[in-house]
Amino acid sequence: MSSIWGNHLKLSVFGESHGKGIGVVLDGLPAGQLIDHDELLAQMARRAPGRDSTTTARKESDFPEILSGLYQNTTTGTPLCAVIRNNDTHSGDYADLNSHPRPGHADYTASVRYGGYNDYRGGGHFSGRLTAPITFAGAICRQILARRGVSIGAHLFAVGAVRDAPFDPMGVPDAVLDALAASPLPTLSPETGRAMRQEIETARLESDSVGGIVECIATGLPTGIGDPMFGGVENRMASILFGIPAVKGVEFGDGFGAAALRGSVNNDAFIYEKDTVRTSTNHHGGILGGITSGMPLLCRVAFKPTPSIFREQQTVDLQTHTEAPLTIHGRHDPCVAVRAVPVVEAASATALLDLFLEAYGYEFR
Amino acid sequence: MSSIWGNHLKLSVFGESHGKGIGVVLDGLPAGQLIDHDELLAQMARRAPGRDSTTTARKESDFPEILSGLYQNTTTGTPLCAVIRNNDTHSGDYADLNSHPRPGHADYTASVRYGGYNDYRGGGHFSGRLTAPITFAGAICRQILARRGVSIGAHLFAVGAVRDAPFDPMGVPDAVLDALAASPLPTLSPETGRAMRQEIETARLESDSVGGIVECIATGLPTGIGDPMFGGVENRMASILFGIPAVKGVEFGDGFGAAALRGSVNNDAFIYEKDTVRTSTNHHGGILGGITSGMPLLCRVAFKPTPSIFREQQTVDLQTHTEAPLTIHGRHDPCVAVRAVPVVEAASATALLDLFLEAYGYEFR
Amino acid sequence: MSSIWGNHLKLSVFGESHGKGIGVVLDGLPAGQLIDHDELLAQMARRAPGRDSTTTARKESDFPEILSGLYQNTTTGTPLCAVIRNNDTHSGDYADLNSHPRPGHADYTASVRYGGYNDYRGGGHFSGRLTAPITFAGAICRQILARRGVSIGAHLFAVGAVRDAPFDPMGVPDAVLDALAASPLPTLSPETGRAMRQEIETARLESDSVGGIVECIATGLPTGIGDPMFGGVENRMASILFGIPAVKGVEFGDGFGAAALRGSVNNDAFIYEKDTVRTSTNHHGGILGGITSGMPLLCRVAFKPTPSIFREQQTVDLQTHTEAPLTIHGRHDPCVAVRAVPVVEAASATALLDLFLEAYGYEFR
Amino acid sequence: MSSIWGNHLKLSVFGESHGKGIGVVLDGLPAGQLIDHDELLAQMARRAPGRDSTTTARKESDFPEILSGLYQNTTTGTPLCAVIRNNDTHSGDYADLNSHPRPGHADYTASVRYGGYNDYRGGGHFSGRLTAPITFAGAICRQILARRGVSIGAHLFAVGAVRDAPFDPMGVPDAVLDALAASPLPTLSPETGRAMRQEIETARLESDSVGGIVECIATGLPTGIGDPMFGGVENRMASILFGIPAVKGVEFGDGFGAAALRGSVNNDAFIYEKDTVRTSTNHHGGILGGITSGMPLLCRVAFKPTPSIFREQQTVDLQTHTEAPLTIHGRHDPCVAVRAVPVVEAASATALLDLFLEAYGYEFR
Repeated sequence: MSSIWGNHLKLSVFGESHGKGIGVVLDGLPAGQLIDHDELLAQMARRAPGRDSTTTARKESDFPEILSGLYQNTTTGTPLCAVIRNNDTHSGDYADLNSHPRPGHADYTASVRYGGYNDYRGGGHFSGRLTAPITFAGAICRQILARRGVSIGAHLFAVGAVRDAPFDPMGVPDAVLDALAASPLPTLSPETGRAMRQEIETARLESDSVGGIVECIATGLPTGIGDPMFGGVENRMASILFGIPAVKGVEFGDGFGAAALRGSVNNDAFIYEKDTVRTSTNHHGGILGGITSGMPLLCRVAFKPTPSIFREQQTVDLQTHTEAPLTIHGRHDPCVAVRAVPVVEAASATALLDLFLEAYGYEFR
Repeated sequence: MSSIWGNHLKLSVFGESHGKGIGVVLDGLPAGQLIDHDELLAQMARRAPGRDSTTTARKESDFPEILSGLYQNTTTGTPLCAVIRNNDTHSGDYADLNSHPRPGHADYTASVRYGGYNDYRGGGHFSGRLTAPITFAGAICRQILARRGVSIGAHLFAVGAVRDAPFDPMGVPDAVLDALAASPLPTLSPETGRAMRQEIETARLESDSVGGIVECIATGLPTGIGDPMFGGVENRMASILFGIPAVKGVEFGDGFGAAALRGSVNNDAFIYEKDTVRTSTNHHGGILGGITSGMPLLCRVAFKPTPSIFREQQTVDLQTHTEAPLTIHGRHDPCVAVRAVPVVEAASATALLDLFLEAYGYEFR
Repeated sequence: MSSIWGNHLKLSVFGESHGKGIGVVLDGLPAGQLIDHDELLAQMARRAPGRDSTTTARKESDFPEILSGLYQNTTTGTPLCAVIRNNDTHSGDYADLNSHPRPGHADYTASVRYGGYNDYRGGGHFSGRLTAPITFAGAICRQILARRGVSIGAHLFAVGAVRDAPFDPMGVPDAVLDALAASPLPTLSPETGRAMRQEIETARLESDSVGGIVECIATGLPTGIGDPMFGGVENRMASILFGIPAVKGVEFGDGFGAAALRGSVNNDAFIYEKDTVRTSTNHHGGILGGITSGMPLLCRVAFKPTPSIFREQQTVDLQTHTEAPLTIHGRHDPCVAVRAVPVVEAASATALLDLFLEAYGYEFR
Repeated sequence: MSSIWGNHLKLSVFGESHGKGIGVVLDGLPAGQLIDHDELLAQMARRAPGRDSTTTARKESDFPEILSGLYQNTTTGTPLCAVIRNNDTHSGDYADLNSHPRPGHADYTASVRYGGYNDYRGGGHFSGRLTAPITFAGAICRQILARRGVSIGAHLFAVGAVRDAPFDPMGVPDAVLDALAASPLPTLSPETGRAMRQEIETARLESDSVGGIVECIATGLPTGIGDPMFGGVENRMASILFGIPAVKGVEFGDGFGAAALRGSVNNDAFIYEKDTVRTSTNHHGGILGGITSGMPLLCRVAFKPTPSIFREQQTVDLQTHTEAPLTIHGRHDPCVAVRAVPVVEAASATALLDLFLEAYGYEFR
């Protein structure tokens, strides 16, 4: 039990990097939702590899074939399954990996977990390629949420030591989010974008990789959705966000920064704005006690540097029980955080739709 | 659906701060586990208030009455329920809060979520007092894990701007963890401890509060437990850790710090130590692809400053729809992170036992 | 994982027959529901032992203490826990049972399942006494459902070879259901009731026991709640009903009888009644494709005869690995189906409220 | 949330009768299980239509394409997805059904549940065709169970008024089960088979249909698997079995028959057989207190007659809100119970593997 997520909307992700295909089943989608296919493919394209030199050279059309759950472009309410075929596989690149686990990858832990029977080629089910079905799921969910006035966007907040300006926690206009979505390396500041591109390029030229942070915002959420304790918005979002490969940290609002603050600074005063309760600042990131406050939801997700680097590394030979050098071949992004931007949005959209369905039941149409 | 957590071991937490009692049901505990009551109470005492001036003046015996699931001090395997009575309640302190939500608290969001019917006294089900049943659950779980060679410990890694030395990610001796557990303000460095105490005391005297970070380590874990994607160790731990009030961030291994690293630094080389695969460093924090690597598990949890401060704050009057000043009374810790140290350990222990039960089934005895 | 049930409303049952107490946590109840305590206790009294000679002589006040989730007699929306103390325990009666499993009981299977560590006294967690918390849960749920126009009732459809008239599947007036609820041995026909009482008394005098069937109806349900396949009304109801001790079969509508019918008889024609779609007959028992049709929901639940009988029986001695005779002492109902009537209603009410919450979300108040 | 089942092994079924395809994702399969494809296809063929005149004339190759989870014919342990394309669809046959719901079908309830957006063609997700993915899942599971010594078989116990001999509850040889599996209309007695065929043929010639009962047995189960209350073997099996279209009742052991028995007859005496505890009879059907006793597991599943009959029936026109006659076209089995035999086995196999995984964890290989 591992690749299924959700309470009211359930996401079941399947597939391995070098198998026949990957995909997702979405169970519990509200019926009667018109799906815009162009918008769907546009979201898939944001994640797809090969947009520029910051990403892997692997070319995949990533075209999702929808097998069920959609009739006359409208959700039927019963499970929606989409399959994405794997075409451009170079499995030969991975011939050694079964016995020589790549540092920083799941090769070794998966081998132990599955008694050596996992499909290790290209990382198998642990591959970053499995973010394509998550992106697909999120692309469906965000269309449904958009009709309820919810906008979701993200940017590259950090690449290595380079930091973008943070989102304004009081709100970000849709036009800004749209512009970010259109950019292959989305930052609020163009200079930051150039510096990040440089950082990534430098790492790549040095046969190295670099980590990054994605910041995500959701605006237009209603007040009062989410549950206390383990059913809080943070818990649910974290439980799906840590499912994106290479994620090592998740924070909401001021997050780790809040630990350094005084209560008198961190507390957000309640005010009235035209008879609506709001807060005058938004250190809490839109969630109090696990429940939405009606303020923008803000989270940041830390990605480690791509573990596949082209320098010789130290590993072990699981057959001979000796240490052995390893040089990785294949095609890999020098900074996974770049293509993770739409994935973080997609995972967030999925988590939010799950919360909406809990709150509103079948009436959510 | 909110206060139940777990897959193979299920934790069902109930209670409100000023109701008759709070407690927990643990369903799925392995049978035949001898429980040491003194050790259990010692864990409860670590979290209990009133140990010194860094914590609230509320006195609660926090004595758990075990109603089921234990026979002759041994787990029966059927649900174990423990109830902790609320005795020292000053509900009068909270009379205003239903209409004047406290900044930084769940008062407002809970009021919307529950249509105004929630028990708002003392924060109700959202109170930090609900960490007592979690601590109880963890105290049971850690005894069972200890017999399997798993040690769990934590320290105050930060209070405001003061930072302790981090745990050695390659491992921490049990004696160090035991010493930390015995300290009301556990730090690796005594000077840091004094500085933190000063930081907290200063905040308290200024009618303010301060945030903090708890770092937790688990050693002795087997390799190969956990699942890919949404069933990973990080996902499961985050989904319970965000259930502790005031948590705003969770990270594993180098966490957010990894975002600033190069892959060549962050990747941990595989080595053999007497025929056992290990890594020469531990930036990954004991988890790769959601699955344990056999290296120590490391996580850090960020706590915001206690929202209850004694300065006048700005809030709204939900009855009159006007803005209104608020002065909070009652008894509150100036730094919730201090008493959260054993709670983070407890939540981690619970998550880890859940993973063990999945891995080993009923045979786990 | 065993004693927790539900998707949107979660029921967590705990306790053992001869331990300190038993009880239940209800997580996910809608907030703002006024609870009538007299009505609650009346439901508990229906199940309580000692009403007449058809039931066990054990006297338990079965008084539920509500520890949380209720404030000013109104549900808060956070977990509601109720504890029932065990008082009248005669544990000495069970001294032998750990090594001499009772035929027809869970003694042997539980002993294997829990490695001999289960609390075997009085059947422990497998005791019929655990139906008290289910009855409590159902008593809460039915009050909430009643306000939405849902009535739930049941009668003894069969005891041994004696059969009552079946419910009219087109509907049963509330007055009839109320009269049944007031009867210690509820039947539609008074003569049947007398014959059943005779059947039970005869069995009792012969140191024997007898089985029975409970038929349950729910009227006033909306059309279109429930899910296809594994989330159907039947699946969910069966999954809770088989949790009542001694249940060996569950059927809906014509159930096993439908297997003998032709389609032309079993199909229920659709008609309009004042612009509302109804069926002219109700062989389907109110459920088509797992989803409510708006017609009364009908189910029947088969109970085996009480396994505790006072004749000498054949069992084994698990210590000596030999066969051994066994004579059971203690206090036992000669026909568990009698007191199971309100339990079947309670389990049904719980399942139906879970379905309502899924359908209507938090708006269900 | 509807079409996902399971706790440790999760089954996610998708598809609609006249959409592009149907299929299943199996998450949680143990790794390292060699799968025999011929055996897999043989199980699929048992359920496939068109074997003889007792079944629908629809021809579907029902060839499952496995997209993931299998590498070198061995389970990888990560999700296994199989897709079956829909080829032979005659959607024109169903043009009217959106506004004229078929009696006994889910057309009307699904229309309300999904606000009219469900894919109504051929019953959509409610079609009996969705039993193909369940059969596929069961075919995988039964191969894994067979290696652990578990055999699963079933026969047509009743068709209309014709009844086969029941299984011997003390056990059925594998050779008998194999012979049943090879028969298109499996009965223990050849004469019964002929009589059933006659019963079905008569119904068909009269443009009618007939119900039936499937009896299923599982031998070779270990003692002590399953959980108390809601996690019992019966609860879990019932929760999947009611997911098969047209099922209206499920019973275990003597089931409804036990209600007519005395305890002295129904109780199964414990005996020793070569140091193994067994029972001398098996009225309990292999389950006591929700937990396996080591005796054969016996259940019976009641199927209503196929609702699609070719006589004119009474229904409503949902557009005009008037009553209207309906004559169904299309291709339909006159007795769904016939092809349901392997489906009942498959659902049982799936439920049992889920229980094994809970009991033995990852070690179950």
